[in-house]
Amino acid sequence: MELALELKPVSLIGFGDGAEAAAFTAINPATGQALEPKFFAASADDLERATSLAQAAFPIYSKLSGKEKGAFLRRIAAAIEAAAPAIIQRANLETALPEARLQGEVGRTCNQLRLFAEVVEEGSWVDARIDNADPNRKPLPKPSIRSMHHPLGPVAVFGASNFPLAFSVAGGDTASALAAGNPVIVKAHPAHPGTSALVGHAIRESVRASGLPEGVFSLLFDAGVEVGIRLVKHPAIKAVAFTGSFAGGTALMKLAAARPEPIPCYSEMGSVNPVFVLPGALSERGSAVATGLQASFTLGAGQFCTKPGLVLVPQADGTPGFLKELGDRVHTTPPQTLLTKAIADRYTAAVKGRDATVLAQGAEAPAGSEAATVQASLFVADYKDLQENAELAQEIFGPTTVVVGYQDRKQLLAVAEQLEGHLTATLQADESELGDYADLIDILTRKVGRLILNAYPTGVEVCHAMVHGGPFPATSDGRSTSVGSQAIFRFTRLVCYQSFPDAALPDELKSSNPLGIMRLVDGERTRAASA
Amino acid sequence: MELALELKPVSLIGFGDGAEAAAFTAINPATGQALEPKFFAASADDLERATSLAQAAFPIYSKLSGKEKGAFLRRIAAAIEAAAPAIIQRANLETALPEARLQGEVGRTCNQLRLFAEVVEEGSWVDARIDNADPNRKPLPKPSIRSMHHPLGPVAVFGASNFPLAFSVAGGDTASALAAGNPVIVKAHPAHPGTSALVGHAIRESVRASGLPEGVFSLLFDAGVEVGIRLVKHPAIKAVAFTGSFAGGTALMKLAAARPEPIPCYSEMGSVNPVFVLPGALSERGSAVATGLQASFTLGAGQFCTKPGLVLVPQADGTPGFLKELGDRVHTTPPQTLLTKAIADRYTAAVKGRDATVLAQGAEAPAGSEAATVQASLFVADYKDLQENAELAQEIFGPTTVVVGYQDRKQLLAVAEQLEGHLTATLQADESELGDYADLIDILTRKVGRLILNAYPTGVEVCHAMVHGGPFPATSDGRSTSVGSQAIFRFTRLVCYQSFPDAALPDELKSSNPLGIMRLVDGERTRAASA
Repeated sequence: MELALELKPVSLIGFGDGAEAAAFTAINPATGQALEPKFFAASADDLERATSLAQAAFPIYSKLSGKEKGAFLRRIAAAIEAAAPAIIQRANLETALPEARLQGEVGRTCNQLRLFAEVVEEGSWVDARIDNADPNRKPLPKPSIRSMHHPLGPVAVFGASNFPLAFSVAGGDTASALAAGNPVIVKAHPAHPGTSALVGHAIRESVRASGLPEGVFSLLFDAGVEVGIRLVKHPAIKAVAFTGSFAGGTALMKLAAARPEPIPCYSEMGSVNPVFVLPGALSERGSAVATGLQASFTLGAGQFCTKPGLVLVPQADGTPGFLKELGDRVHTTPPQTLLTKAIADRYTAAVKGRDATVLAQGAEAPAGSEAATVQASLFVADYKDLQENAELAQEIFGPTTVVVGYQDRKQLLAVAEQLEGHLTATLQADESELGDYADLIDILTRKVGRLILNAYPTGVEVCHAMVHGGPFPATSDGRSTSVGSQAIFRFTRLVCYQSFPDAALPDELKSSNPLGIMRLVDGERTRAASA
Repeated sequence: MELALELKPVSLIGFGDGAEAAAFTAINPATGQALEPKFFAASADDLERATSLAQAAFPIYSKLSGKEKGAFLRRIAAAIEAAAPAIIQRANLETALPEARLQGEVGRTCNQLRLFAEVVEEGSWVDARIDNADPNRKPLPKPSIRSMHHPLGPVAVFGASNFPLAFSVAGGDTASALAAGNPVIVKAHPAHPGTSALVGHAIRESVRASGLPEGVFSLLFDAGVEVGIRLVKHPAIKAVAFTGSFAGGTALMKLAAARPEPIPCYSEMGSVNPVFVLPGALSERGSAVATGLQASFTLGAGQFCTKPGLVLVPQADGTPGFLKELGDRVHTTPPQTLLTKAIADRYTAAVKGRDATVLAQGAEAPAGSEAATVQASLFVADYKDLQENAELAQEIFGPTTVVVGYQDRKQLLAVAEQLEGHLTATLQADESELGDYADLIDILTRKVGRLILNAYPTGVEVCHAMVHGGPFPATSDGRSTSVGSQAIFRFTRLVCYQSFPDAALPDELKSSNPLGIMRLVDGERTRAASA
């Protein structure tokens, strides 16, 4: 079934329409067929208009109260929910992701928007700090100094292919950038332009209904990389957020660093998410671990950035049983349709080229099909193979993983120490053996953003404490997170005011604390007035 | 008088001595004479040893408790105070900064160390966050997620010429990096090697007395740039901090971004620190503003990164009197000795080359001297000059400033809007006129890290709310500050733990809150236990 989009298939430049420049279509990865309508890439003029509207909107939008920003974010969530049936139907055609998954992703997208609404409505997130004056201090009087986080300016967000909603037009990057007070210009992912358009219109209508300047949001289409490159190089843009490949993420990092005015670039570039199965866990519940692993590495057809792509398992009595169970489960895994034919072809080539033993494969994809359908693959190797073949510790995007056997604790620690930066590391362990492996936990703490015990890395909770980040090459900037409320700080900078009277200060910094937020006053956290 | 240093004039590689490679000497800028002893540049082997010691120290030092790190920082402060007479004497010879100023800088350096000691001893700085599990949540159970800031790894710190103590070997960058839990390798500024050696030994002895691994601190000498370049490119280094010139700061940014593993680089590169005199302030206290300005732009011979280098003054009845007062004060300013002959020569050439009217000059430097002594210079220009000659808004390091007359509010706002990023902007205003200039304050909030009312930008308070930073080109990373307790976050990254039991968690994240720190538990700030 084709969905007749009633929207003009052009970029959204504030409240206006983009040009009808170069045309492209989305492809249904389940059939290989082009999906109506044709979409049109943004023109150079569209980009200029979008950036100057964003620049004009910034002074107004950045001064909105937390309550006003919160209402705007909640309005976007409601507009997406209202359009959910159409969005899910179109996203299913464009991505081959099942409707239940997309339904969940709509929920997560709206939850993210509402979490940030909550954060800015409450208001303490700005980390207001007040150091009171002391005119009698010797040798010099102490001035009053008051600081808080301010927004950076217009942010460029790149939609991701693998999360057409939660990391795309109204995804986490957009939500956190808007929450911080920044206009957003999204470069839509070309694989799901219809989904992007539907969500883009939901945001545009929320901008309008909230009485905000149109430049708060624009959406640019392009089948290639030109529009994205021009966007990142544009002087009006003050930060970049991207989720996708290492090649794409590092290209944007270089562009952002090479500008006359370098800007922060947050690229989330995927990860192998190593899983360390400790001896106790293997012997006591090897079968359950095998079941959980298969479910995790094939979830969403293995297209999550948190997919476990490397599993360390002890060579012990339980190993053959564990491998048998895992192999059997992989063997019965149905064919998996990936997001695009190009991704499917890369997956198939990478799996074919992997220098390791294939332990099991899932059901074969139908021969001769134009669909982006592939076969799940399970590899096995040992410590020595991993030492000799660094490729085994590299990500293959799609439903595959490699199980590496280790002989002893020394090999296990060596593998951990040699890891690059990853988003996550997972321990499958008996709680009683954790003490014995404290050194492993220490090493992993230096390598990843999230450590998981006795669960699986897929599934990222959206909350205050979540860290979805990790040292390079997992991300461009391991200091931050792209999921959870702390993501807001990617798009802010500190500003302080010296000797300003209340009347000239933002509400967050006034002595009476009119917003009732938690502040650091002379080093103490308090909601009390400051003087 | 020459100071006989009783120290070996070589790099400090942990507890060991560096090689006696290429020799160089400090020059007394007040006389042009070389100062004994000769110092020796670090060898390639020294650098390898320093970095591998730092790498080895990191797993141990990063796990120290806040109390242990606090005791270490306080020990360094005490050791510097004990050596203060020798340090001040040597620094005076190497920098020509007066003893009173150096005495103040020792105080500030030790205050910084003790502020960070206080912060880590108290412990709440790690921003521990706990989102409790909810096994009954639908559709999926909610896991327990707990996050906090962790240190990055070994940090390279570059000593600054203009703060031989407070931004040098044991300066703000070293203090904040150590407080966060990172080993530090300092590249000493070649203009004050003796001062650096004395302070370096104070730190080394504190490392030893605290029973810490020697790799926590090393100090490298070099007259050129080779050692610094190799240090920033070394894979063991995880962050860079620098205070100095735009050329130096941007060179380090490029090196840090071009590494196979890019790392954060915090370059603080100076600023013009514009001062906006509003009509009310001019008419009511023009003379006081003239006095304050002259004191500020000649303070420390105009060698502060916060020196006001551009002053906007309304063309009004009070202007001639203001300029007369300011010119008279500049005219009687004695010759100023700068930090090095090279800096003095650059200053003299820049002042000579400035395309603006000289309103007044200070007393002339003695002719034919080898000293780094220069003449203070005051320029005047108008709005049109500033539009036509962007150089007038560029920093000249040393005792000079330019006063630019503006005709009306429109010109004033245009100047503000055209500013690049700066560390500070200052308003001289009647409180009653601030409301009328709210748009000016809004513009400046987007341009600087610190806004100052009715004071002068020189003099940076070391406190919790201070922001000493600002958008590029003032710094490489306008999101952060290099002064005040928030500087610690330059050297940390977020890590979270999912479903970990208390026994395997850092104390900061244990449910019982054994450290009694302030945490964000399910979105609420509290010192209570989490469950």
